[in-house]
Amino acid sequence: MSKPKVFEKPIGVKDYLPGAVAKLRHIEREVLACMQGWGYEQIITPTMEYYDTVGMASSTTDKKLFKLLNNRGTTLVLRSDMTAPIARVVASLLKESAFPLRLSYHSNIFRSIEEEAGREAEFFQTGVELVGDSSADADAEVVALAIASLKAAGVERFKIAIGHVGFLNGLFEELLSGRKAEQEELKSCLLGRDYVGYREKLRSLALDASVQGELESILRLRGGQEICDQALQLRTNAEGRQSIRHLCEIWDALKAYGVCEHVLIDLTMIGDFSYYTGMTFEGYAADLGFPVVSGGRYDNLLAQFGRPAAATGFALKTTRILELLGDSEETELERTLVLYNGSGRSEALSEAQRLRAEGKQVIAERCTAEELERLYKDFDGRTYTFKGVRYNALSAFVKGGDRV
Amino acid sequence: MSKPKVFEKPIGVKDYLPGAVAKLRHIEREVLACMQGWGYEQIITPTMEYYDTVGMASSTTDKKLFKLLNNRGTTLVLRSDMTAPIARVVASLLKESAFPLRLSYHSNIFRSIEEEAGREAEFFQTGVELVGDSSADADAEVVALAIASLKAAGVERFKIAIGHVGFLNGLFEELLSGRKAEQEELKSCLLGRDYVGYREKLRSLALDASVQGELESILRLRGGQEICDQALQLRTNAEGRQSIRHLCEIWDALKAYGVCEHVLIDLTMIGDFSYYTGMTFEGYAADLGFPVVSGGRYDNLLAQFGRPAAATGFALKTTRILELLGDSEETELERTLVLYNGSGRSEALSEAQRLRAEGKQVIAERCTAEELERLYKDFDGRTYTFKGVRYNALSAFVKGGDRV
Repeated sequence: MSKPKVFEKPIGVKDYLPGAVAKLRHIEREVLACMQGWGYEQIITPTMEYYDTVGMASSTTDKKLFKLLNNRGTTLVLRSDMTAPIARVVASLLKESAFPLRLSYHSNIFRSIEEEAGREAEFFQTGVELVGDSSADADAEVVALAIASLKAAGVERFKIAIGHVGFLNGLFEELLSGRKAEQEELKSCLLGRDYVGYREKLRSLALDASVQGELESILRLRGGQEICDQALQLRTNAEGRQSIRHLCEIWDALKAYGVCEHVLIDLTMIGDFSYYTGMTFEGYAADLGFPVVSGGRYDNLLAQFGRPAAATGFALKTTRILELLGDSEETELERTLVLYNGSGRSEALSEAQRLRAEGKQVIAERCTAEELERLYKDFDGRTYTFKGVRYNALSAFVKGGDRV
Repeated sequence: MSKPKVFEKPIGVKDYLPGAVAKLRHIEREVLACMQGWGYEQIITPTMEYYDTVGMASSTTDKKLFKLLNNRGTTLVLRSDMTAPIARVVASLLKESAFPLRLSYHSNIFRSIEEEAGREAEFFQTGVELVGDSSADADAEVVALAIASLKAAGVERFKIAIGHVGFLNGLFEELLSGRKAEQEELKSCLLGRDYVGYREKLRSLALDASVQGELESILRLRGGQEICDQALQLRTNAEGRQSIRHLCEIWDALKAYGVCEHVLIDLTMIGDFSYYTGMTFEGYAADLGFPVVSGGRYDNLLAQFGRPAAATGFALKTTRILELLGDSEETELERTLVLYNGSGRSEALSEAQRLRAEGKQVIAERCTAEELERLYKDFDGRTYTFKGVRYNALSAFVKGGDRV
């Protein structure tokens, strides 16, 4: 294959120019401050992890992992989420710290992609993990914090859909007992939100009419607290019933947080990570087809790192939120231009230092008398433009050091 | 070889716990704000770049590059500096932007390492590039900004040593004309600051006494402005003399910036990047054997990306500065604990939300009446400790929802 052109960057990754960086930094700062307000403290983990430990635990399919060899021949991966690395830290560096642990992060994440339009191989996530608390209160806390975080990021119109892995497991075990392959096919339809495919698959199974009716009816199980009551009418097993009661309790707590206007229960929802064991949720912003936040409970992951513990958490899809917010009108920064020629340099640079010490943004540039004249001529009454940059103020030390 | 243990991370990389992250974030914020005050705007580039473009331009030796294959079989590298990626962006996305361009970054950097004590495979740098200005003023600006950035990072006692690639080139060409291999060996000694080795190598060359004397005398060329005058006495060629005059002009500008107390001229200095073409500098903090900042002029790099331009810049070794600053006394964060039991939950969670809206850091935890009693008993008159976390304030909603 041909060599890349000199100015090209790899497919699926991108450069962020100053306008985008300013927005990204703003989201990062506001969201992390919000998380800190809820008692979550930031950690940073390495970009590379061992394939055999974090790579295997990450629930990212093998072909989506970026792999490389270190100089001892061991396979490393670029982290494909932050949940598994944080589990590793909780079980090692933080193994003496009491539960519950509240940790937050802002990090880039890597997933090798097919060349699909708009999919990114490196993107940013901002999230939390609440480790060592199995209660519905803990689940409600992370959902309420996800809502607060989205607001802090500047997302105004959004809905969080909450489901439970145990509800579908219970229902399918009760109604399609022993038919694992069919259960998986149906779940796969639900994961892809392919409801037409789900109905077709159901019909192809030639089920008892009442069973088929019940399995179809779950597609209508989306709404408020009333959904839990309806779900309890379905034939399900102990796990299914327990899951519904857990969701009811989460709903109660979310009422106390005052955030139910943003929440709906969606019992068809399946989290996108295989390590989820309980409540899962996804947040959708108005007019956007993909989630801006996703999370859930993963009570078995920590045991893989040698410190069994319940855990729940979420990740904001920060890069998507950045796109969602669009270009804000450029905030007009106060910027001072200090111009000088040879004999005015010393005075000009001192003046620039003095202005910076006052907190001003100052750029010092050498210029000729002709350039200075042109600058005055082009002055629009409000801003000066010099070499493509706009300034609000000007100090000139040109020609014998006379200050203009 | 054996599999890594579940809790291990790769050699040479590390986890940053909340205390370290808070310090790192503080340095990052203060330094970037300082750079913005000088007109430098932040950019972010991808972690992965093409080996054939940025990898080759990066002046990192091949065996220190982390390499991986993408799914088309093209070799990628994890960035080993930010200068080459920024050169790529200046020549592509920013190709319509007028010079000079002032860009800043805070980024992690990757270098594959032998297992030497204390060497890191992933570390943070915070730096700037000033592109499109070949003047001594531009070099002085980045040196003065490096000094301001170190101060912003909290480094108080440090020295910046400035040298020039052209001085040694000119001297060696004049005095060791045509003896390329010997020139390289001598430069290699200077790069490693191996002055004993340099003298031994000189003696082994059986040079004319006056030539040997001159080549030895450069080891004493370290000091203030007077060094430039002394250097001009040596036999050198036009390039060498031009380099000295350039350094004198930088010194003059640094006087105007009022920062000469931090600067010394060191004509034995060779920058650690092969792409340096002019002034180079390194900053040393008191009591630390390795540089905390390094930089220099690289006028040929941009041409490799198709947009020839002069450029100068530096990178703070942010991870080293973090170690240098040591553990600051933990700033006592105001933290409120809201405790509740079943019947108090709704009221407690509302109260937690109210306190957070006031900007307080609040953690809500369920507890039993017994735990609450113990908490009161253990109260030290100033702080409460619950599950390993210290709090300054407490609201309890335990037992029938009665507020305590």
